Amino acid sequence: MDAFDVTILGCSSATPAFGRYPTSQLVHMAGRYFLVDCGEGAQMQLRRYSIKFQRINHIFISHLHGDHFFGLMGLLSSLHLLGRTEPLHLYAEASLKEIIDVTNKHSRSVLQYPIVFHPLSYTESQVLFEDEKLTVSTVVVKHSIPCVGFIFTEKPKPRKLIKEEIEKYQVPVEKMEALKHGEDFVAADGKVIPNDVLTLPAMPSRTYAFCADTIYDEEIIPFIANADLVYHEATFMEDMRDRAKQTMHSTAKDAATIAKKAGVKKLIIGHFSARYKELGPMLAEAHTVFAETYLAEEGKKENV
Amino acid sequence: MDAFDVTILGCSSATPAFGRYPTSQLVHMAGRYFLVDCGEGAQMQLRRYSIKFQRINHIFISHLHGDHFFGLMGLLSSLHLLGRTEPLHLYAEASLKEIIDVTNKHSRSVLQYPIVFHPLSYTESQVLFEDEKLTVSTVVVKHSIPCVGFIFTEKPKPRKLIKEEIEKYQVPVEKMEALKHGEDFVAADGKVIPNDVLTLPAMPSRTYAFCADTIYDEEIIPFIANADLVYHEATFMEDMRDRAKQTMHSTAKDAATIAKKAGVKKLIIGHFSARYKELGPMLAEAHTVFAETYLAEEGKKENV
Repeated sequence: MDAFDVTILGCSSATPAFGRYPTSQLVHMAGRYFLVDCGEGAQMQLRRYSIKFQRINHIFISHLHGDHFFGLMGLLSSLHLLGRTEPLHLYAEASLKEIIDVTNKHSRSVLQYPIVFHPLSYTESQVLFEDEKLTVSTVVVKHSIPCVGFIFTEKPKPRKLIKEEIEKYQVPVEKMEALKHGEDFVAADGKVIPNDVLTLPAMPSRTYAFCADTIYDEEIIPFIANADLVYHEATFMEDMRDRAKQTMHSTAKDAATIAKKAGVKKLIIGHFSARYKELGPMLAEAHTVFAETYLAEEGKKENV
Repeated sequence: MDAFDVTILGCSSATPAFGRYPTSQLVHMAGRYFLVDCGEGAQMQLRRYSIKFQRINHIFISHLHGDHFFGLMGLLSSLHLLGRTEPLHLYAEASLKEIIDVTNKHSRSVLQYPIVFHPLSYTESQVLFEDEKLTVSTVVVKHSIPCVGFIFTEKPKPRKLIKEEIEKYQVPVEKMEALKHGEDFVAADGKVIPNDVLTLPAMPSRTYAFCADTIYDEEIIPFIANADLVYHEATFMEDMRDRAKQTMHSTAKDAATIAKKAGVKKLIIGHFSARYKELGPMLAEAHTVFAETYLAEEGKKENV
């Protein structure tokens, strides 16, 4: 099975505190490395956890609140200084380009690699990346400024051939690919051998969903339904419900409720407010709704 | 004696490495807190070393290479979120204001405190701050882009009255201030009592000099002559002299030579290139020229 994992680099909200860094995470799937958000210090966290910068070819920025992108200029600069020449794909609100351009201009920086800038839509879901293994798409979320989450989904996998049955029915090599994709086999004598005699079901396609900064919003449920792993912000606890509403953030209970209603396998909560030093009560609140909730833990690799 | 100390928050050069942060330091003198440069992660380092953000009223940015200011937006944002309303004085190249304005505009941030922006001169030395205790001035240094260092100098202190002599010569209270400033005393009988009979010499005024990023440049010597503490960059060792010249940085030997020629009491070297994991050889190189050289150590408070 292909490796598919997420390393949280930062789980703090707007103000870093208690050693917690602002939002950033690395999503890895079968040799593809994606950075999701890039809060201040993301490059230090990549170093701390011995993650090679140059493997990252795609950076997704959910929205332009500083705690989600103030580490970007430093990372772009370090990639340059470390000798990058490969193009880097950057997906963000269009105006981020002006920030980058103005900053590079005044710091007299000319990056030695091209940035391929992909402006995001904040009105409809988009497919941002697709190859033979993986699709990355967006889900528009409701926050105080335009914001999207990112959904990483494995492509449907081939069914598995049953070696003994393949031999028994003398399936020729050139027919095997069709079998893997669910077709039946017509033998030399015209007899139809049903696909499920010759193959086993494909491994399920796994999904990781990063829900960015969002108010409690059931409209995201169809996008994250049955996901293997979901990261949902839990900036506050229920005691700060008014503040959560006002700032368009979620509580731990909100995150757990969304996860439960979406039937996800596992929920990680993060984006913790600096007012919470101890996170145990936050986890306990989520557990009253959804048992498979875990606290984000910086540097820990979570399998999808 | 007033407290006067420097806490190094970052001693790495362009690319943070080996847990070393990019340039930033806190200069404290008798309750005044000044931030000198603000590389990425400066706010995390302030937190790590339990330094209260809101005490900082003046931020000096030596030049606009990213490793000296990419932590600024995050710090400005956190000051806002933590409730600051007091004005913040920011001293930097004029174009930094455009970077801040564009970034705040696109992140929809309106800071709840005023930034008083002081554009720096890169052609002549300036006094940036002055009160009854301290003067902060600039020294123009030679780097690949406009760059200044910052000199923190205590104001001349009053001479100390010798209690027994004051009583013996019956000096009236209203004359004492003049004595502290070196005047002689004329007694009721017209006899002149020389000042040095009545007072002891003032404590010397201490100086801290931050030399920023600079090529080896003897022109800075008059500005840092006899300083108590000097921070001079040592990005490279002598084995990389060509690279130092090309990038307009100094070697450890350069820094030590400047310190020796300037007759300073103590030298701290920093701004280490990411190519040096172990810094012992760098210190050894400096020691061949100037014994009172020390490696910058993040979080350590150095008395001036």
